[in-house]
Amino acid sequence: MNTPVPSGGERINVSEHFTTLETYDVRFPTSRHRHGSDAMNPFPDYSAAYVEITTSAGRQGFGLAFTVGRGNDVQAAAIEALRPLIVGRDVAEVLGAMGAFARTLTGDSQLRWLGPEKGAIHMAAGAVINAVWDLAARSADVPLWKLLADLEPEQLVELVDFRYLRDALTEQDALDLLRAARAGREQRELELLARGYPAYTTTPGWLGYDDETLARLSREAVDEGFSLIKLKVGGNLADDVRRLAVARAAVGPNLPIAVDANQIWGVAEAIAWMDALRPGNPYWIEEPTSPDDVLGHAAIRRAVAPIRVATGEHGHNAVMFKQLLQAGAVDVVQIDACRVGGVNENVAILLLAAKFGVPVCPHAGGVGLCEMVQHLAMFDYLAVSATWEGRVIEYVDHLHEHFVEPATIVDGRYATPRGPGGGARMHPESIAQFGYPDGAAWRTEALVGAHAAGIDGMDQA
Amino acid sequence: MNTPVPSGGERINVSEHFTTLETYDVRFPTSRHRHGSDAMNPFPDYSAAYVEITTSAGRQGFGLAFTVGRGNDVQAAAIEALRPLIVGRDVAEVLGAMGAFARTLTGDSQLRWLGPEKGAIHMAAGAVINAVWDLAARSADVPLWKLLADLEPEQLVELVDFRYLRDALTEQDALDLLRAARAGREQRELELLARGYPAYTTTPGWLGYDDETLARLSREAVDEGFSLIKLKVGGNLADDVRRLAVARAAVGPNLPIAVDANQIWGVAEAIAWMDALRPGNPYWIEEPTSPDDVLGHAAIRRAVAPIRVATGEHGHNAVMFKQLLQAGAVDVVQIDACRVGGVNENVAILLLAAKFGVPVCPHAGGVGLCEMVQHLAMFDYLAVSATWEGRVIEYVDHLHEHFVEPATIVDGRYATPRGPGGGARMHPESIAQFGYPDGAAWRTEALVGAHAAGIDGMDQA
Repeated sequence: MNTPVPSGGERINVSEHFTTLETYDVRFPTSRHRHGSDAMNPFPDYSAAYVEITTSAGRQGFGLAFTVGRGNDVQAAAIEALRPLIVGRDVAEVLGAMGAFARTLTGDSQLRWLGPEKGAIHMAAGAVINAVWDLAARSADVPLWKLLADLEPEQLVELVDFRYLRDALTEQDALDLLRAARAGREQRELELLARGYPAYTTTPGWLGYDDETLARLSREAVDEGFSLIKLKVGGNLADDVRRLAVARAAVGPNLPIAVDANQIWGVAEAIAWMDALRPGNPYWIEEPTSPDDVLGHAAIRRAVAPIRVATGEHGHNAVMFKQLLQAGAVDVVQIDACRVGGVNENVAILLLAAKFGVPVCPHAGGVGLCEMVQHLAMFDYLAVSATWEGRVIEYVDHLHEHFVEPATIVDGRYATPRGPGGGARMHPESIAQFGYPDGAAWRTEALVGAHAAGIDGMDQA
Repeated sequence: MNTPVPSGGERINVSEHFTTLETYDVRFPTSRHRHGSDAMNPFPDYSAAYVEITTSAGRQGFGLAFTVGRGNDVQAAAIEALRPLIVGRDVAEVLGAMGAFARTLTGDSQLRWLGPEKGAIHMAAGAVINAVWDLAARSADVPLWKLLADLEPEQLVELVDFRYLRDALTEQDALDLLRAARAGREQRELELLARGYPAYTTTPGWLGYDDETLARLSREAVDEGFSLIKLKVGGNLADDVRRLAVARAAVGPNLPIAVDANQIWGVAEAIAWMDALRPGNPYWIEEPTSPDDVLGHAAIRRAVAPIRVATGEHGHNAVMFKQLLQAGAVDVVQIDACRVGGVNENVAILLLAAKFGVPVCPHAGGVGLCEMVQHLAMFDYLAVSATWEGRVIEYVDHLHEHFVEPATIVDGRYATPRGPGGGARMHPESIAQFGYPDGAAWRTEALVGAHAAGIDGMDQA
């Protein structure tokens, strides 16, 4: 809307527009305690390239890209490169056509060269797109899962970029799925609000923990009501066999135990290793090899059945998920809130998984991933797959205190969030304290120096 | 080597080590003339995130990551993130184990999260690895192709990270291939030096050119002795049919004409479009769909045969090439000097292509890609595939004047470079003039503003 300025003769645009995009490099020195240690990430410093967008009416939205430490500044720079694509734009126009908006970010003809649709620039697009969804949900005063689940099938289809997907999923397929999922929707929403969504925990199983800690945390997971626990594997085969036995003894014969190799193996190695772990009855093997290796995952899946194959936290876009499903390479699709191009691309992935009848068990942990991805799983339950059978959201119990609406577990399930937004908003105090390299948490010069130089896990030395 | 300091009692390390890594954001405002325009990149500003490494003995090496404009600063930041992994390291140790060195860059446990092995952080690793190879070749006073071709098979195998490749290519497979390629090696080197390497040109076929320009440039390409020409397609079908007919009329019935869609289509669209172009007898269709879509390329290849399918310039790592070959998805492998993890990963891709018997026709053009990739094709001819049958290197005639050793075409073939290094070194004057945003070429404020805001191709308005 353009209105004349009362005096001076100029016209100004007074419709609400995006005025700022600010980024923050937030890093938690988690490597000092080996929280989050796995076969490929021995000493991660869990981090967030955090983004805050503001409109001329003072509305705000929050998003982030999760990283594991060094390079978080590069990730923040990638988000900043998108600033000209949002600042100055009309808010109503953006919110009214989120599919078109997302495509301007993921498809910018110059920036996409840095991907295309993968790596730092694509995660940056995801962070900004998610921040706009957060703003939309805050404005509607509803949690993101509710905002999404209340959209019409036609509106959801508009969100998705079908260009590379139609050989597996057409617009009509998506409409059919979404319309079918309306049956029983109200009942499911009541159940979701009453019971929350099933969860599993990775807390017991980090590679850095000794057997005693593993057994204790595994027993606690059972007591807390989790549906499944997960162990990191791939460091040393004898250790893994022993650790799986320790966990199995701790949880009893019936609780599913998943294992996660974090990409450490080649195809043949993955198959041999899983053969050795078979007596422990692992429920799924996660990331057995390169996340790019669709055909490798298919070969592994054929060889290790009935052990399931799970992957997706590093699946960089919907085209990869399409192929994993087309090739019969996965039993469990693990979406991640921050890896792909935001809510929009995750809607595409949920639709693909539903089309192929494969359950989605989101990846979480990290910084804010639990807070964000629960909304997508709950949306899926209400409006896409319409079931939580065989589905669990990962939960890792750290760093939640930094979020304004922390993910909450009750009786081993994610309590359904009731507050507005998409979950990414952090406390200003946390951003200040863990801001890198000037926050109080990093003020010890030696710590910054060690982090920058790649000397992590200092207290392990 | 540690030696005592003559006085003072301290010991200092006097062995040669890397002292600096400097980056430069160099951008050419090519969008003003629509050089390089294609279906996905209507207005590229060809750019380089340029890297210069220096040792304590004053030796230098030069590398770059190619981008198409905005985001070149993000790419430079990604290169800078690798600085702690090289500065301070012993030069002899690095040069003596280039495979291990490359893996420290591509496998850093924190930085790899930004990929893994893809996007800006992986291109950054490639730029630094290539700069070290450039330094190695300069130090040996030989061109890179010669340095590589003179390595023993065992030394070449050490360069490659086989972790994710062994289901298609083992160390033994690689050794067998490399040993077999020794037959006739001296004769091929003489021939390479005498004749250069076959080339094709994309100069006639940019989407922004009118028919008259297309016809004139096509005829010139024939006159200049090129083996093949290539047209960009995918904007408008009727235009493409007409343009292919114009080019076919200009070059006659026998010269191969390749077409390049730059990822614009989905699978079904690609097949339909190529059916319509069939009468013009296209030699290959390049990048018909998403570069990530291995199964999509396989489906397209089955449908469009005998038209060949070519891809690779956006193939982000060797795992993708492995799958393209395993799935029978490509007839032509198009390596790129700057997309993957440097010389090392390109050696892996050349070995994979040789194992599957698929020709490699490198992607070039851009900024410095011709200068760099010719070394890899020539190395392939001497030491890997041992043939140039069905092989051509792309050539695009612009921006070569900025390089100290510009790629040179003689009788439609790349003249074999004789000078030391890997080709990436630019003139200091070019770096200064096209440095973004402070170089003289960008000093017009309106130009910088338009570039940053995404308003390219100003003289097209």
